[in-house]
Amino acid sequence: MSTNRVEAFSDGVFAIAITLLVLQINVPESGSGEHLARALISEWPSYAAYATSFFTIGIIWINHHVMIRRLEIVDHSILIWNLVLLMCVGLLPFTTALMAAYLKGSEGEALAAAVYSGSFLVMTLVFAATNHHVLFRKSELLIDEVDDATRHLTVKRGAAGSLPYLLATGLAFVSPYLTFAICAGVAVFYSLPFATASESPTSVAT
Amino acid sequence: MSTNRVEAFSDGVFAIAITLLVLQINVPESGSGEHLARALISEWPSYAAYATSFFTIGIIWINHHVMIRRLEIVDHSILIWNLVLLMCVGLLPFTTALMAAYLKGSEGEALAAAVYSGSFLVMTLVFAATNHHVLFRKSELLIDEVDDATRHLTVKRGAAGSLPYLLATGLAFVSPYLTFAICAGVAVFYSLPFATASESPTSVAT
Amino acid sequence: MSTNRVEAFSDGVFAIAITLLVLQINVPESGSGEHLARALISEWPSYAAYATSFFTIGIIWINHHVMIRRLEIVDHSILIWNLVLLMCVGLLPFTTALMAAYLKGSEGEALAAAVYSGSFLVMTLVFAATNHHVLFRKSELLIDEVDDATRHLTVKRGAAGSLPYLLATGLAFVSPYLTFAICAGVAVFYSLPFATASESPTSVAT
Amino acid sequence: MSTNRVEAFSDGVFAIAITLLVLQINVPESGSGEHLARALISEWPSYAAYATSFFTIGIIWINHHVMIRRLEIVDHSILIWNLVLLMCVGLLPFTTALMAAYLKGSEGEALAAAVYSGSFLVMTLVFAATNHHVLFRKSELLIDEVDDATRHLTVKRGAAGSLPYLLATGLAFVSPYLTFAICAGVAVFYSLPFATASESPTSVAT
Repeated sequence: MSTNRVEAFSDGVFAIAITLLVLQINVPESGSGEHLARALISEWPSYAAYATSFFTIGIIWINHHVMIRRLEIVDHSILIWNLVLLMCVGLLPFTTALMAAYLKGSEGEALAAAVYSGSFLVMTLVFAATNHHVLFRKSELLIDEVDDATRHLTVKRGAAGSLPYLLATGLAFVSPYLTFAICAGVAVFYSLPFATASESPTSVAT
Repeated sequence: MSTNRVEAFSDGVFAIAITLLVLQINVPESGSGEHLARALISEWPSYAAYATSFFTIGIIWINHHVMIRRLEIVDHSILIWNLVLLMCVGLLPFTTALMAAYLKGSEGEALAAAVYSGSFLVMTLVFAATNHHVLFRKSELLIDEVDDATRHLTVKRGAAGSLPYLLATGLAFVSPYLTFAICAGVAVFYSLPFATASESPTSVAT
Repeated sequence: MSTNRVEAFSDGVFAIAITLLVLQINVPESGSGEHLARALISEWPSYAAYATSFFTIGIIWINHHVMIRRLEIVDHSILIWNLVLLMCVGLLPFTTALMAAYLKGSEGEALAAAVYSGSFLVMTLVFAATNHHVLFRKSELLIDEVDDATRHLTVKRGAAGSLPYLLATGLAFVSPYLTFAICAGVAVFYSLPFATASESPTSVAT
Repeated sequence: MSTNRVEAFSDGVFAIAITLLVLQINVPESGSGEHLARALISEWPSYAAYATSFFTIGIIWINHHVMIRRLEIVDHSILIWNLVLLMCVGLLPFTTALMAAYLKGSEGEALAAAVYSGSFLVMTLVFAATNHHVLFRKSELLIDEVDDATRHLTVKRGAAGSLPYLLATGLAFVSPYLTFAICAGVAVFYSLPFATASESPTSVAT
């Protein structure tokens, strides 16, 4: 199958998942007696989770294209790996809503935070595994040969990107706010200009 | 009409249907007194149904492209068959939500399971019928001629793919869990590497 | 602006609106004591409205491409007309949900049916107006010149397509079921093979 | 990264956000004793907010393409600016729902209106900043050189487009209806034919 259709379908899933994030921000019930300003302020975890998940999905989308663009065609195994990755991305509106709902409350926020950063952890691990599959086991489908050092570096960097989420998940039971702050920090970090040079596989492969 | 636009539109419907699946996973109500861990665990049918439907839609999407790619252009009749197919795909978020909701409860789970695998049954039958229409009645629109043996084999395999769902639907009133397990098993089966060679029409047609 | 981007954006809106239709089909509440079979059967207006709206949007999507394909480029005025058309399409998940909800109940079904067929009426009128704008006022943007007879015929046929909806809307207060049957009948009619030759503008313009 | 993929992804987010707007229009509860006609009429803020946001997103989509089409390729920084812009667009279904819900009620409507026009204000400012980034700091990525006067004019016009929203946000506590009317008026203004010549950056750059 040509990579164009895989990109189009994947772009669709990324774009929809990223846009569905907004559904977890609730409109405070009108006429409930509660002051709207207070109600909107108390929803800050929803806004913060929206922004964090939005940028995290956006960055994985950028990396996804770097990975797909390396390929001339895709075979069945890559399509299935890609589906597993998209399945993780598709879950994020749920884990984001869970995190936001429980950070507002007074119980369960540790578990909710662990599930939230855990979903990022799994997604980044699946991404690294997919990259590994493409670069090491399906190298005959690549447009340009990629040398061994670059392949190892790319996969290692991808795997390293999951370390902050591992830490964040472990710390959820110490402080869910810390977990959330790490997730947000990762999104900010990869958005910074210097991240391109040091982290994005683009600079390595091309 | 060129196949490009049909692919783009169909890709859109597949991508949206697959991403809407997440909406059936409910965030347990915060502050309801129930322990979040227990609430999340009791939602396992939602996760299992999400994964099963995600992969089933993903695999039908792969097969859809194999079918469309054979065509040079599409005529009105193929567009209408395609719409019927997409209508079945578009229903899956509903049947998935139904299955997940009732597998958690204590009544109606047999019927919910029958509707779930029944929706896959209808989808695969419509897919086989669409393939039959394309290969046998609209062969003048194909890019390359397809010989008779291949055409029969392709349609027969497509129809055979609906047999597990027929079985699963029939067994729903014996055990809804069995029905669900068969649906999940089919999704896993077509994701396995050897499935490409033995089942996907690609290997036959090209 | 090139027509490609307009098609891609419009395809997106059509695909999303058509897939959001499923959200109006409710999963009957589990454990409510009501028998699931009865609950599912009583939801038949939702299924019928889903199928009718799905095909109606699908057919307008086909016609939309016929219209856009005639154009070499689009200008600001065509983009705005297109936005008005998409705004009507985007409303259909609401009017479909309204129709389905009230056809199940015992009051308001006449008004709900009138709003339903009324939304199709407005959509077809806007479509005819957009076609008129393209063919008569922006003919310099067309790829091939279209002769006067064809232009008049195309717009007339488009406008004629709104007549059944005018009738259906008027009859809503006689019988909402009749209104619904007409809307469903129109969708079936344009899906039939002979509809291509007699109704689709394609056969005229090319 | 090629601009094609950025356009496809952005088109997806625009198309989904614009289509999700319909979800804020509620189907009045059937059998609630309230007359449907009255219930539908009392929802007028939902319809008005739907139309206003639909056109506002549609117009920013048009301007977005003008901006992206100027570019040969995009770098990391432009992708991140684009993500910030899309994040603002993705929030609009929420702010639209908020505005519509509170304009119907009797308290909080001033704040809701301020948030509504405030979300347009932020979006237009981000758009102007992105345009500034592209034209002034990334001019080496442009397909054609853009002269200094044009660059300044384009950014100035973009920034000027945010002034009505600044005014509208400030006036929310005087009259939320006025705020809403200004937002609607801006959408109408940019839809008018003469807006192309005087306001759209297209006419300047090409």
